[in-house]
Amino acid sequence: MSFELLHTDATTKARRGRLTTPHGVIETPIFMPVGTQGTVKTLHPDDLLAIEAQIILGNTYHLYLRPGLDVIDQFGGLHNFMQWQRPILTDSGGFQVWSLAKLRKITEEGVRFQNHLNGAAMMLSPEVSMEIQARLGSDIAMLFDECPPYPCERSYAEESTDLTSRWAKRCRDWVDANRPEATDGGRQLHFGIVQGSVYADLRERSARALVDLGFDGYAIGGVSVGEPEVEMMRAMDHAVPFLPEDKPRYAMGLGTPPQLLEMIARGVDMFDCVMPTRVARNGMAFTFDGPINFKNARHEFDTSPLHPDTHPTVLPFSRAYIRHLIKAGEILGLRLLSLHNLHFFLTLMQQAREAISANRFEEFKNEFIERYEARNY
Amino acid sequence: MSFELLHTDATTKARRGRLTTPHGVIETPIFMPVGTQGTVKTLHPDDLLAIEAQIILGNTYHLYLRPGLDVIDQFGGLHNFMQWQRPILTDSGGFQVWSLAKLRKITEEGVRFQNHLNGAAMMLSPEVSMEIQARLGSDIAMLFDECPPYPCERSYAEESTDLTSRWAKRCRDWVDANRPEATDGGRQLHFGIVQGSVYADLRERSARALVDLGFDGYAIGGVSVGEPEVEMMRAMDHAVPFLPEDKPRYAMGLGTPPQLLEMIARGVDMFDCVMPTRVARNGMAFTFDGPINFKNARHEFDTSPLHPDTHPTVLPFSRAYIRHLIKAGEILGLRLLSLHNLHFFLTLMQQAREAISANRFEEFKNEFIERYEARNY
Ligand SMILES: [Zn+2]
Ligand SMILES: [Zn+2]
Repeated sequence: MSFELLHTDATTKARRGRLTTPHGVIETPIFMPVGTQGTVKTLHPDDLLAIEAQIILGNTYHLYLRPGLDVIDQFGGLHNFMQWQRPILTDSGGFQVWSLAKLRKITEEGVRFQNHLNGAAMMLSPEVSMEIQARLGSDIAMLFDECPPYPCERSYAEESTDLTSRWAKRCRDWVDANRPEATDGGRQLHFGIVQGSVYADLRERSARALVDLGFDGYAIGGVSVGEPEVEMMRAMDHAVPFLPEDKPRYAMGLGTPPQLLEMIARGVDMFDCVMPTRVARNGMAFTFDGPINFKNARHEFDTSPLHPDTHPTVLPFSRAYIRHLIKAGEILGLRLLSLHNLHFFLTLMQQAREAISANRFEEFKNEFIERYEARNY
Repeated sequence: MSFELLHTDATTKARRGRLTTPHGVIETPIFMPVGTQGTVKTLHPDDLLAIEAQIILGNTYHLYLRPGLDVIDQFGGLHNFMQWQRPILTDSGGFQVWSLAKLRKITEEGVRFQNHLNGAAMMLSPEVSMEIQARLGSDIAMLFDECPPYPCERSYAEESTDLTSRWAKRCRDWVDANRPEATDGGRQLHFGIVQGSVYADLRERSARALVDLGFDGYAIGGVSVGEPEVEMMRAMDHAVPFLPEDKPRYAMGLGTPPQLLEMIARGVDMFDCVMPTRVARNGMAFTFDGPINFKNARHEFDTSPLHPDTHPTVLPFSRAYIRHLIKAGEILGLRLLSLHNLHFFLTLMQQAREAISANRFEEFKNEFIERYEARNY
């Protein structure tokens, strides 16, 4: 049994759990920093240890294209290639094909496309995706799915959902036949992905089909595709009731700090998002007192630190200095904001876990959001 | 007395010394990492401590433009603004005006120009440069000089050298009248700059004029302007004999690892160069076995470390991984190569100091160059 449900909050559906993987234990709810190309942007693995990252995400599509599996094979897997010995989750590549590749053609077999780097014709299928992820040696591999756009006609959503279910069966069969392991050994875990767009009955149908096949965890997919927040939350509400209590639930590619807490309250355990590192490139920092935009002139002479609760590595620097680095295009500015933002997301998760254990998650969530939106610092 | 000459090598002019500044002691010969815009590119001050950087350089021209002195005044100086509490040397701004600004017009008063950021008309003069450096609070301020191009007609070189000497007198007067201090107090040191282009008698004339005025150290300027290596070494040979034994000598903006050792053998004590961080952006690493170009395909599958003598922070990573980061444009690649290259330059200086103390600098230099040029790793 890889997941242990430790406690459910008294008034919300928020859960505290513990997921055991070949590279270690993950306390949930948890946020996973994104390391698209085998590195969490601007950060050294030691930085990730310093902010107590428990698990990171790697993008199968990117790593398959560059450096390619022949390189990663030399190291026996992604962990040793990138020098990260804690858990790694890899996505299936499907979402990246959907968002980056050209001339996509979806058939029953899989997806043919031209990659965004050199336009070469390529193919991803359930079996190919599972094999790539097996060679990457991730601790958690995601099933290969089709991600419908938003908005999406009912007829397309229905066909797409059923295709994802048939692909899930093929992934299940591949895993049963090949018994993939993580880097350095240990059974790789596999998470199914619930699709169904905005249609409650399709979400249910998708969830039931996956649960019938039996996986180590379940993700809610087809979100983070431009839908309004209300649809994002509905996708959780439509899927969670049909997922087993004793398996982790993962909302893919989401979200803002208040959204994370709203999803935790709905019983979601795991999250990933590029936002903390992406907004750093725009000079943005998340704090308990709301976001800060360092391009704003009001920070020009500000000798105070980014925030009293920032990481010790960032605390010595003033807002004026961080603003200067961002304005001057200096990489240290990206490093400091990326580290700060990921530290903030991970601290938020830690506080959420403590609030769940104390049966006060609802109060914690409301207090957080009130302070966050007041922007008083 | 700020400089103590500890030992001179038995067979070369290489010297070991100790320079005391308001922010601490510098063991010479030393290499100074360049922090143009108030940050050594890609590195955190903790990284600079990890590689045992003793002093860094700040560029007056860049810092004067951005963030500007009004911002740095809020912190009482550059050290506190950038959170670096070891020594800082600032250049005069003259070389940057020469290499970056537009519509330069040199008069007896100083240099009028349009800055490269927004084209605004600005003026630097001996007094203005010394005042800016006083407000930056550097431990060592450079005198404001005129840097003639290479090649340079004798008549222009002569006029330029004498202008630099008259400007040196005005710097001396400004310093005597204003007694500038480093950030948090302590007498700021001042280094004159020997000019004279390729003309031996002008180098001598320039050196004598500066020594008559009396400064804490002397730089050899007008190098790193595209001259061949033989002229670079001649500039040292033409200046050093006329500089006092008991003051440090600084070759500005130089050079490759073998060049540094050749200049140390000629009695030079201090160096700065953007090369270690600049070549990192081209995927280049310096090692005791010669330079490595990570864009070279032969590193694609290489599981060995960058070099056995790299810094512990870089050692866990393979050449294949570093190559991947560089090819993928990932910032961690720049970080690792910048840290490695600066660590290499600083290690080279440490070994040079030890060789001087052991009276075996010539042997050390020849062994280093032989191995470096063999490129056997
Ligand atoms: Zn491992
Ligand atoms: Zn200080």
